[in-house]
Amino acid sequence: MAPLANNHISVDCAVFGFDGEQLRILLLKRSGVTVAGEELNDFKLPGSLIYQDEDLDEAASRVLRELTGVSDIALTQFKAFGSKDRTSNPRDVHWLERAQQARVERIVTIAYFALVKLDKNLERSVDPAVAEWRALDEVGALAFDHNLIIEEALKAIRRETGNDRALVFDLLPKKFTASQLRTLMQILSGKQLDVRNFHKKISQLPYIVPLDERQQGVAHRAARYYRFDRKAYSGSR
Amino acid sequence: MAPLANNHISVDCAVFGFDGEQLRILLLKRSGVTVAGEELNDFKLPGSLIYQDEDLDEAASRVLRELTGVSDIALTQFKAFGSKDRTSNPRDVHWLERAQQARVERIVTIAYFALVKLDKNLERSVDPAVAEWRALDEVGALAFDHNLIIEEALKAIRRETGNDRALVFDLLPKKFTASQLRTLMQILSGKQLDVRNFHKKISQLPYIVPLDERQQGVAHRAARYYRFDRKAYSGSR
Repeated sequence: MAPLANNHISVDCAVFGFDGEQLRILLLKRSGVTVAGEELNDFKLPGSLIYQDEDLDEAASRVLRELTGVSDIALTQFKAFGSKDRTSNPRDVHWLERAQQARVERIVTIAYFALVKLDKNLERSVDPAVAEWRALDEVGALAFDHNLIIEEALKAIRRETGNDRALVFDLLPKKFTASQLRTLMQILSGKQLDVRNFHKKISQLPYIVPLDERQQGVAHRAARYYRFDRKAYSGSR
Repeated sequence: MAPLANNHISVDCAVFGFDGEQLRILLLKRSGVTVAGEELNDFKLPGSLIYQDEDLDEAASRVLRELTGVSDIALTQFKAFGSKDRTSNPRDVHWLERAQQARVERIVTIAYFALVKLDKNLERSVDPAVAEWRALDEVGALAFDHNLIIEEALKAIRRETGNDRALVFDLLPKKFTASQLRTLMQILSGKQLDVRNFHKKISQLPYIVPLDERQQGVAHRAARYYRFDRKAYSGSR
Protein backbone atom coordinates (compact mmCIF):
# COMPACT_ATOMS: atom_id res chain seq x y z
CA MET A 1 0.00 0.00 0.00
CA ALA A 2 1.21 3.50 -0.81
CA PRO A 3 2.13 5.64 2.20
CA LEU A 4 -0.60 7.92 3.49
CA ALA A 5 0.01 11.62 2.96
CA ASN A 6 -1.17 12.03 6.53
CA ASN A 7 -4.30 11.17 8.41
CA HIS A 8 -5.85 14.59 8.01
CA ILE A 9 -7.04 14.80 4.43
CA SER A 10 -9.57 12.60 2.70
CA VAL A 11 -11.69 12.62 -0.42
CA ASP A 12 -15.37 11.67 -0.63
CA CYS A 13 -17.40 10.95 -3.74
CA ALA A 14 -21.11 11.64 -4.19
CA VAL A 15 -22.05 9.72 -7.35
CA PHE A 16 -25.60 10.32 -8.59
CA GLY A 17 -27.63 8.28 -11.03
CA PHE A 18 -31.23 8.61 -12.26
CA ASP A 19 -33.42 5.52 -12.52
CA GLY A 20 -36.15 7.17 -14.61
CA GLU A 21 -38.14 8.21 -11.58
CA GLN A 22 -35.74 9.44 -8.93
CA LEU A 23 -32.13 10.23 -8.16
CA ARG A 24 -30.02 7.53 -6.58
CA ILE A 25 -26.69 7.85 -4.85
CA LEU A 26 -23.91 5.29 -4.58
CA LEU A 27 -23.35 4.41 -0.92
CA LEU A 28 -20.91 2.10 0.77
CA LYS A 29 -22.08 -0.30 3.46
CA ARG A 30 -20.27 0.29 6.72
CA SER A 31 -19.97 -2.73 8.95
CA GLY A 32 -18.22 -3.27 12.25
CA VAL A 33 -19.15 -2.80 15.88
CA THR A 34 -19.98 0.26 17.92
CA VAL A 35 -18.17 1.21 21.13
CA ALA A 36 -20.97 -0.55 23.01
CA GLY A 37 -20.36 -3.72 20.99
CA GLU A 38 -23.50 -3.41 18.91
CA GLU A 39 -23.46 -4.28 15.24
CA LEU A 40 -22.84 -1.32 12.98
CA ASN A 41 -24.89 -1.45 9.80
CA ASP A 42 -25.15 1.87 8.16
CA PHE A 43 -23.96 3.67 5.05
CA LYS A 44 -21.33 6.18 4.07
CA LEU A 45 -20.11 7.89 0.93
CA PRO A 46 -17.20 6.18 -0.80
CA GLY A 47 -14.20 8.02 0.59
CA SER A 48 -10.80 7.56 2.18
CA LEU A 49 -7.55 9.25 3.12
CA ILE A 50 -5.25 10.38 0.32
CA TYR A 51 -1.83 8.92 -0.42
CA GLN A 52 1.42 10.86 -0.41
CA ASP A 53 2.05 10.48 -4.12
CA GLU A 54 -1.33 11.36 -5.59
CA ASP A 55 -3.16 14.57 -6.34
CA LEU A 56 -6.67 15.14 -5.02
CA ASP A 57 -8.40 14.27 -8.29
CA GLU A 58 -6.33 11.10 -8.59
CA ALA A 59 -7.18 10.16 -5.02
CA ALA A 60 -10.92 10.60 -5.69
CA SER A 61 -10.82 8.32 -8.76
CA ARG A 62 -8.71 5.70 -6.99
CA VAL A 63 -10.81 5.63 -3.84
CA LEU A 64 -14.06 5.31 -5.80
CA ARG A 65 -12.64 2.52 -7.95
CA GLU A 66 -11.10 0.61 -5.04
CA LEU A 67 -14.15 0.85 -2.81
CA THR A 68 -17.00 0.42 -5.29
CA GLY A 69 -15.58 -0.86 -8.59
CA VAL A 70 -16.85 2.24 -10.39
CA SER A 71 -14.25 3.78 -12.67
CA ASP A 72 -13.87 6.04 -15.71
CA ILE A 73 -16.40 8.61 -14.63
CA ALA A 74 -15.93 12.38 -14.48
CA LEU A 75 -15.59 13.53 -10.86
CA THR A 76 -15.98 17.24 -10.13
CA GLN A 77 -14.52 18.75 -6.98
CA PHE A 78 -17.18 20.98 -5.42
CA LYS A 79 -16.36 21.73 -1.78
CA ALA A 80 -14.06 21.06 1.15
CA PHE A 81 -15.69 20.08 4.43
CA GLY A 82 -13.63 20.85 7.49
CA SER A 83 -15.87 21.53 10.45
CA LYS A 84 -13.96 20.77 13.64
CA ASP A 85 -16.92 18.64 14.74
CA ARG A 86 -17.15 16.40 11.72
CA THR A 87 -15.29 13.52 13.36
CA SER A 88 -16.76 13.95 16.84
CA ASN A 89 -19.47 11.24 16.84
CA PRO A 90 -18.05 8.34 18.96
CA ARG A 91 -19.70 5.90 16.56
CA ASP A 92 -17.63 7.30 13.68
CA VAL A 93 -14.43 7.74 15.67
CA HIS A 94 -14.52 4.14 16.91
CA TRP A 95 -15.11 2.78 13.41
CA LEU A 96 -12.43 4.99 11.89
CA GLU A 97 -9.77 4.19 14.47
CA ARG A 98 -10.30 0.47 13.91
CA ALA A 99 -10.20 0.92 10.15
CA GLN A 100 -7.12 3.13 10.26
CA GLN A 101 -5.36 1.43 13.14
CA ALA A 102 -4.45 4.87 14.41
CA ARG A 103 -5.79 7.63 16.60
CA VAL A 104 -8.15 9.84 14.65
CA GLU A 105 -7.63 13.55 14.68
CA ARG A 106 -9.40 16.14 12.67
CA ILE A 107 -10.00 15.26 9.02
CA VAL A 108 -10.77 17.74 6.25
CA THR A 109 -12.44 16.06 3.31
CA ILE A 110 -12.46 17.27 -0.28
CA ALA A 111 -15.79 16.31 -1.82
CA TYR A 112 -16.50 15.38 -5.44
CA PHE A 113 -19.72 14.76 -7.31
CA ALA A 114 -20.39 12.76 -10.46
CA LEU A 115 -23.44 12.33 -12.68
CA VAL A 116 -23.69 8.92 -14.31
CA LYS A 117 -25.96 6.88 -16.56
CA LEU A 118 -27.38 4.09 -14.39
CA ASP A 119 -27.02 1.40 -17.02
CA LYS A 120 -26.54 -2.35 -16.75
CA ASN A 121 -22.75 -2.07 -17.02
CA LEU A 122 -22.53 0.31 -14.14
CA GLU A 123 -24.90 -1.73 -12.02
CA ARG A 124 -22.88 -4.88 -12.70
CA SER A 125 -19.62 -3.19 -11.65
CA VAL A 126 -20.98 -2.60 -8.13
CA ASP A 127 -20.89 -5.55 -5.71
CA PRO A 128 -24.21 -5.47 -3.80
CA ALA A 129 -22.48 -6.88 -0.71
CA VAL A 130 -20.31 -3.76 -0.59
CA ALA A 131 -22.20 -0.86 -2.10
CA GLU A 132 -25.69 0.14 -3.15
CA TRP A 133 -27.53 2.68 -5.32
CA ARG A 134 -29.89 4.14 -2.71
CA ALA A 135 -32.83 6.36 -3.58
CA LEU A 136 -32.18 9.83 -2.18
CA ASP A 137 -35.20 9.73 0.13
CA GLU A 138 -34.08 6.40 1.58
CA VAL A 139 -30.58 7.48 2.48
CA GLY A 140 -31.20 7.78 6.23
CA ALA A 141 -28.57 8.95 8.71
CA LEU A 142 -25.14 8.46 7.19
CA ALA A 143 -21.70 8.37 8.78
CA PHE A 144 -19.86 11.60 9.63
CA ASP A 145 -21.27 14.69 7.87
CA HIS A 146 -22.12 12.72 4.74
CA ASN A 147 -25.77 13.82 4.73
CA LEU A 148 -24.54 17.41 4.61
CA ILE A 149 -22.10 16.56 1.82
CA ILE A 150 -24.95 15.10 -0.27
CA GLU A 151 -27.08 18.19 0.37
CA GLU A 152 -24.26 20.48 -0.75
CA ALA A 153 -23.51 18.24 -3.73
CA LEU A 154 -27.13 18.63 -4.86
CA LYS A 155 -26.83 22.41 -4.55
CA ALA A 156 -23.65 22.36 -6.64
CA ILE A 157 -25.31 20.10 -9.24
CA ARG A 158 -28.36 22.41 -9.45
CA ARG A 159 -26.02 25.36 -9.96
CA GLU A 160 -23.92 23.58 -12.60
CA THR A 161 -26.83 22.12 -14.55
CA GLY A 162 -28.39 25.60 -14.47
CA ASN A 163 -25.21 26.96 -16.09
CA ASP A 164 -24.79 24.14 -18.55
CA ARG A 165 -27.91 22.21 -19.48
CA ALA A 166 -25.82 19.53 -21.21
CA LEU A 167 -24.91 18.07 -17.80
CA VAL A 168 -28.52 17.00 -17.28
CA PHE A 169 -28.11 14.50 -20.10
CA ASP A 170 -25.18 12.85 -18.33
CA LEU A 171 -27.84 11.35 -16.04
CA LEU A 172 -30.16 10.11 -18.79
CA PRO A 173 -29.81 7.01 -20.96
CA LYS A 174 -28.82 7.62 -24.59
CA LYS A 175 -32.48 7.18 -25.54
CA PHE A 176 -34.93 8.75 -23.14
CA THR A 177 -38.63 9.64 -23.05
CA ALA A 178 -39.96 13.17 -22.61
CA SER A 179 -41.46 12.05 -19.34
CA GLN A 180 -38.06 10.90 -18.01
CA LEU A 181 -36.52 14.22 -19.00
CA ARG A 182 -39.35 16.17 -17.39
CA THR A 183 -39.13 14.17 -14.17
CA LEU A 184 -35.39 14.77 -13.98
CA MET A 185 -35.75 18.49 -14.72
CA GLN A 186 -38.37 18.73 -11.98
CA ILE A 187 -36.02 17.12 -9.48
CA LEU A 188 -33.13 19.37 -10.47
CA SER A 189 -35.14 22.59 -10.58
CA GLY A 190 -37.32 21.80 -7.59
CA LYS A 191 -40.33 22.98 -9.63
CA GLN A 192 -43.35 21.19 -11.11
CA LEU A 193 -43.37 21.47 -14.91
CA ASP A 194 -46.60 21.48 -16.84
CA VAL A 195 -46.69 18.43 -19.15
CA ARG A 196 -48.12 20.20 -22.20
CA ASN A 197 -45.81 23.23 -21.97
CA PHE A 198 -42.86 20.94 -21.46
CA HIS A 199 -43.62 18.96 -24.63
CA LYS A 200 -44.07 22.16 -26.56
CA LYS A 201 -40.78 23.50 -25.24
CA ILE A 202 -38.67 20.46 -26.09
CA SER A 203 -40.17 20.29 -29.58
CA GLN A 204 -38.60 23.73 -30.13
CA LEU A 205 -35.15 22.79 -28.83
CA PRO A 206 -32.85 21.77 -31.70
CA TYR A 207 -30.71 19.59 -29.43
CA ILE A 208 -33.50 17.30 -28.26
CA VAL A 209 -34.02 15.08 -31.25
CA PRO A 210 -37.09 12.79 -31.56
CA LEU A 211 -36.30 9.25 -32.72
CA ASP A 212 -38.42 6.91 -34.83
CA GLU A 213 -38.49 4.54 -31.92
CA ARG A 214 -40.87 3.96 -29.05
CA GLN A 215 -40.80 2.18 -25.72
CA GLN A 216 -41.53 -1.53 -25.90
CA GLY A 217 -43.35 -3.84 -23.53
CA VAL A 218 -44.90 -1.12 -21.42
CA ALA A 219 -48.43 -1.36 -20.01
CA HIS A 220 -49.27 2.23 -20.86
CA ARG A 221 -49.15 3.95 -24.26
CA ALA A 222 -45.60 3.50 -25.58
CA ALA A 223 -43.76 6.81 -25.46
CA ARG A 224 -41.41 8.13 -28.11
CA TYR A 225 -37.68 8.15 -27.49
CA TYR A 226 -35.48 11.20 -27.84
CA ARG A 227 -31.73 11.69 -27.93
CA PHE A 228 -29.51 14.61 -26.91
CA ASP A 229 -27.51 16.19 -29.72
CA ARG A 230 -24.40 17.66 -28.11
CA LYS A 231 -23.27 19.40 -31.29
CA ALA A 232 -26.60 21.12 -31.81
CA TYR A 233 -26.54 22.12 -28.15
CA SER A 234 -23.11 23.74 -28.41
CA GLY A 235 -24.26 25.56 -31.52
CA SER A 236 -27.38 26.86 -29.78
CA ARG A 237 -25.54 28.51 -26.87
CA MET B 1 -1.20 30.92 20.07
CA ALA B 2 -3.86 28.29 19.47
CA PRO B 3 -2.55 24.82 18.66
CA LEU B 4 -2.28 23.99 14.97
CA ALA B 5 -4.72 21.38 13.72
CA ASN B 6 -1.76 19.89 11.93
CA ASN B 7 0.71 21.14 9.38
CA HIS B 8 -1.18 19.77 6.41
CA ILE B 9 -4.16 22.06 5.91
CA SER B 10 -4.15 25.75 5.18
CA VAL B 11 -6.53 28.41 3.93
CA ASP B 12 -5.71 31.08 1.32
CA CYS B 13 -7.70 34.19 0.51
CA ALA B 14 -7.93 35.86 -2.91
CA VAL B 15 -9.49 39.26 -2.19
CA PHE B 16 -10.37 41.31 -5.27
CA GLY B 17 -11.12 45.00 -5.55
CA PHE B 18 -11.84 47.25 -8.53
CA ASP B 19 -10.17 50.66 -8.80
CA GLY B 20 -12.41 51.98 -11.57
CA GLU B 21 -10.10 50.75 -14.31
CA GLN B 22 -8.83 47.33 -13.35
CA LEU B 23 -9.08 44.52 -10.83
CA ARG B 24 -6.64 44.51 -7.95
CA ILE B 25 -5.78 41.70 -5.58
CA LEU B 26 -4.62 41.90 -2.00
CA LEU B 27 -1.15 40.38 -1.70
CA LEU B 28 1.14 39.86 1.23
CA LYS B 29 4.82 40.76 0.99
CA ARG B 30 7.03 37.78 1.66
CA SER B 31 10.43 38.60 3.05
CA GLY B 32 13.26 36.39 4.21
CA VAL B 33 16.21 34.72 2.58
CA THR B 34 16.48 32.00 -0.03
CA VAL B 35 18.47 28.79 0.49
CA ALA B 36 21.34 30.52 -1.33
CA GLY B 37 21.20 33.40 1.15
CA GLU B 38 19.68 35.86 -1.32
CA GLU B 39 17.04 38.28 -0.22
CA LEU B 40 13.50 37.06 -0.80
CA ASN B 41 11.16 39.81 -1.91
CA ASP B 42 8.09 38.48 -3.52
CA PHE B 43 4.39 38.18 -2.88
CA LYS B 44 1.90 35.58 -1.76
CA LEU B 45 -1.79 35.35 -1.06
CA PRO B 46 -2.77 35.91 2.56
CA GLY B 47 -2.96 32.39 3.94
CA SER B 48 -1.83 30.16 6.77
CA LEU B 49 -2.36 26.83 8.51
CA ILE B 50 -5.62 26.27 10.37
CA TYR B 51 -5.96 25.88 14.13
CA GLN B 52 -7.39 22.86 15.88
CA ASP B 53 -10.42 24.66 17.27
CA GLU B 54 -11.66 26.54 14.21
CA ASP B 55 -13.70 25.66 11.17
CA LEU B 56 -12.39 26.39 7.68
CA ASP B 57 -14.49 29.54 7.21
CA GLU B 58 -13.39 30.82 10.61
CA ALA B 59 -9.76 30.13 9.75
CA ALA B 60 -10.04 32.08 6.50
CA SER B 61 -11.49 35.16 8.26
CA ARG B 62 -8.93 34.99 11.05
CA VAL B 63 -5.94 34.54 8.77
CA LEU B 64 -6.99 37.42 6.52
CA ARG B 65 -7.57 39.71 9.51
CA GLU B 66 -4.33 38.77 11.27
CA LEU B 67 -2.15 39.05 8.18
CA THR B 68 -3.66 42.06 6.42
CA GLY B 69 -5.97 43.89 8.83
CA VAL B 70 -8.92 43.31 6.50
CA SER B 71 -11.99 42.04 8.32
CA ASP B 72 -15.78 41.81 8.03
CA ILE B 73 -15.85 40.78 4.39
CA ALA B 74 -17.71 37.85 2.87
CA LEU B 75 -15.31 35.06 1.95
CA THR B 76 -16.54 32.32 -0.38
CA GLN B 77 -14.84 28.94 -0.44
CA PHE B 78 -14.32 27.97 -4.07
CA LYS B 79 -11.74 25.20 -4.40
CA ALA B 80 -9.22 22.99 -2.61
CA PHE B 81 -5.71 22.87 -4.07
CA GLY B 82 -3.81 19.73 -3.25
CA SER B 83 -1.34 18.91 -5.98
CA LYS B 84 1.48 16.84 -4.54
CA ASP B 85 3.92 19.28 -6.16
CA ARG B 86 2.54 22.49 -4.71
CA THR B 87 5.17 22.69 -1.95
CA SER B 88 8.09 21.40 -4.00
CA ASN B 89 9.85 24.67 -4.93
CA PRO B 90 12.94 24.89 -2.65
CA ARG B 91 12.39 28.63 -2.38
CA ASP B 92 8.96 28.05 -0.85
CA VAL B 93 9.99 25.10 1.30
CA HIS B 94 12.89 27.00 2.82
CA TRP B 95 10.70 30.01 3.60
CA LEU B 96 7.92 27.88 5.03
CA GLU B 97 10.16 25.76 7.24
CA ARG B 98 11.68 28.87 8.76
CA ALA B 99 8.24 30.42 9.26
CA GLN B 100 6.78 27.23 10.74
CA GLN B 101 9.89 26.05 12.57
CA ALA B 102 9.05 22.57 11.39
CA ARG B 103 9.67 20.24 8.50
CA VAL B 104 7.19 20.91 5.72
CA GLU B 105 5.23 18.06 4.28
CA ARG B 106 2.44 18.20 1.83
CA ILE B 107 -0.11 20.95 2.37
CA VAL B 108 -3.63 21.03 0.96
CA THR B 109 -5.03 24.54 0.92
CA ILE B 110 -8.69 25.51 0.89
CA ALA B 111 -9.05 28.68 -1.18
CA TYR B 112 -11.55 31.51 -0.69
CA PHE B 113 -12.37 34.54 -2.76
CA ALA B 114 -13.90 37.88 -1.78
CA LEU B 115 -15.16 40.86 -3.77
CA VAL B 116 -14.76 44.18 -1.97
CA LYS B 117 -15.30 47.89 -2.47
CA LEU B 118 -11.84 49.46 -2.63
CA ASP B 119 -12.74 52.47 -0.52
CA LYS B 120 -10.65 54.66 1.73
CA ASN B 121 -11.55 52.66 4.85
CA LEU B 122 -10.35 49.45 3.32
CA GLU B 123 -7.19 51.02 2.00
CA ARG B 124 -6.42 52.51 5.40
CA SER B 125 -6.83 49.12 7.12
CA VAL B 126 -3.97 47.64 5.08
CA ASP B 127 -0.42 48.42 6.23
CA PRO B 128 1.62 49.12 3.05
CA ALA B 129 4.72 47.64 4.69
CA VAL B 130 2.93 44.30 4.93
CA ALA B 131 0.42 44.03 2.11
CA GLU B 132 -0.52 45.67 -1.15
CA TRP B 133 -3.41 45.94 -3.62
CA ARG B 134 -1.65 44.85 -6.80
CA ALA B 135 -3.10 45.27 -10.26
CA LEU B 136 -3.81 41.81 -11.70
CA ASP B 137 -1.40 42.27 -14.60
CA GLU B 138 1.41 43.26 -12.23
CA VAL B 139 1.13 40.26 -9.97
CA GLY B 140 4.25 38.48 -11.28
CA ALA B 141 5.38 35.06 -10.08
CA LEU B 142 3.87 34.38 -6.67
CA ALA B 143 4.81 31.88 -3.97
CA PHE B 144 3.62 28.26 -4.20
CA ASP B 145 0.73 27.75 -6.66
CA HIS B 146 -0.80 31.11 -5.84
CA ASN B 147 -0.87 32.25 -9.48
CA LEU B 148 -2.99 29.18 -10.23
CA ILE B 149 -5.24 29.92 -7.26
CA ILE B 150 -5.87 33.46 -8.57
CA GLU B 151 -6.64 32.09 -12.04
CA GLU B 152 -9.14 29.61 -10.62
CA ALA B 153 -10.61 32.30 -8.34
CA LEU B 154 -11.29 34.45 -11.41
CA LYS B 155 -13.00 31.52 -13.12
CA ALA B 156 -15.17 30.97 -10.05
CA ILE B 157 -15.99 34.71 -9.87
CA ARG B 158 -16.94 34.80 -13.56
CA ARG B 159 -19.20 31.79 -13.00
CA GLU B 160 -20.80 33.26 -9.87
CA THR B 161 -21.31 36.76 -11.27
CA GLY B 162 -22.82 35.12 -14.35
CA ASN B 163 -25.32 33.35 -12.08
CA ASP B 164 -26.01 36.33 -9.87
CA ARG B 165 -25.39 39.75 -11.39
CA ALA B 166 -25.77 41.38 -7.95
CA LEU B 167 -22.25 40.20 -7.03
CA VAL B 168 -20.76 42.56 -9.63
CA PHE B 169 -21.92 45.51 -7.54
CA ASP B 170 -19.97 44.25 -4.53
CA LEU B 171 -16.90 45.50 -6.42
CA LEU B 172 -18.27 48.95 -7.29
CA PRO B 173 -18.57 52.00 -5.05
CA LYS B 174 -22.08 52.90 -3.88
CA LYS B 175 -22.16 55.58 -6.59
CA PHE B 176 -20.60 54.55 -9.88
CA THR B 177 -20.49 55.78 -13.45
CA ALA B 178 -21.76 53.83 -16.46
CA SER B 179 -18.20 53.72 -17.71
CA GLN B 180 -16.94 52.08 -14.49
CA LEU B 181 -19.70 49.48 -14.68
CA ARG B 182 -18.96 48.79 -18.34
CA THR B 183 -15.22 48.43 -17.71
CA LEU B 184 -15.88 45.98 -14.88
CA MET B 185 -18.38 43.98 -16.94
CA GLN B 186 -15.82 43.78 -19.75
CA ILE B 187 -13.20 42.43 -17.37
CA LEU B 188 -15.58 39.87 -15.90
CA SER B 189 -17.06 38.73 -19.21
CA GLY B 190 -13.81 38.92 -21.17
CA LYS B 191 -15.75 40.68 -23.95
CA GLN B 192 -15.66 44.21 -25.34
CA LEU B 193 -19.01 45.95 -24.85
CA ASP B 194 -20.23 48.58 -27.26
CA VAL B 195 -20.61 51.92 -25.40
CA ARG B 196 -23.90 52.97 -26.98
CA ASN B 197 -25.57 49.56 -26.61
CA PHE B 198 -24.38 49.36 -23.04
CA HIS B 199 -25.94 52.72 -22.13
CA LYS B 200 -29.15 51.70 -23.79
CA LYS B 201 -29.17 48.41 -21.93
CA ILE B 202 -28.61 49.84 -18.46
CA SER B 203 -31.27 52.50 -19.04
CA GLN B 204 -33.71 49.59 -19.35
CA LEU B 205 -32.61 47.82 -16.19
CA PRO B 206 -34.83 48.77 -13.24
CA TYR B 207 -32.08 48.01 -10.72
CA ILE B 208 -29.52 50.46 -12.11
CA VAL B 209 -30.84 53.79 -10.92
CA PRO B 210 -29.53 57.12 -12.30
CA LEU B 211 -28.79 59.73 -9.64
CA ASP B 212 -29.07 63.54 -9.89
CA GLU B 213 -25.39 63.73 -9.23
CA ARG B 214 -22.33 63.92 -11.45
CA GLN B 215 -18.59 63.42 -11.04
CA GLN B 216 -16.72 66.45 -9.76
CA GLY B 217 -13.27 67.79 -10.49
CA VAL B 218 -12.68 65.63 -13.56
CA ALA B 219 -10.87 66.92 -16.66
CA HIS B 220 -13.34 65.28 -19.05
CA ARG B 221 -17.10 65.78 -19.23
CA ALA B 222 -18.51 64.93 -15.79
CA ALA B 223 -20.38 61.63 -15.94
CA ARG B 224 -23.62 60.84 -14.17
CA TYR B 225 -23.61 58.57 -11.14
CA TYR B 226 -25.76 55.48 -10.76
CA ARG B 227 -26.61 53.26 -7.84
CA PHE B 228 -27.54 49.58 -7.62
CA ASP B 229 -31.01 48.86 -6.23
CA ARG B 230 -30.82 45.43 -4.65
CA LYS B 231 -34.56 45.24 -4.02
CA ALA B 232 -35.44 46.03 -7.63
CA TYR B 233 -32.85 43.46 -8.71
CA SER B 234 -34.36 40.69 -6.57
CA GLY B 235 -37.79 41.59 -7.95
CA SER B 236 -36.54 41.41 -11.55
CA ARG B 237 -35.17 37.86 -11.34
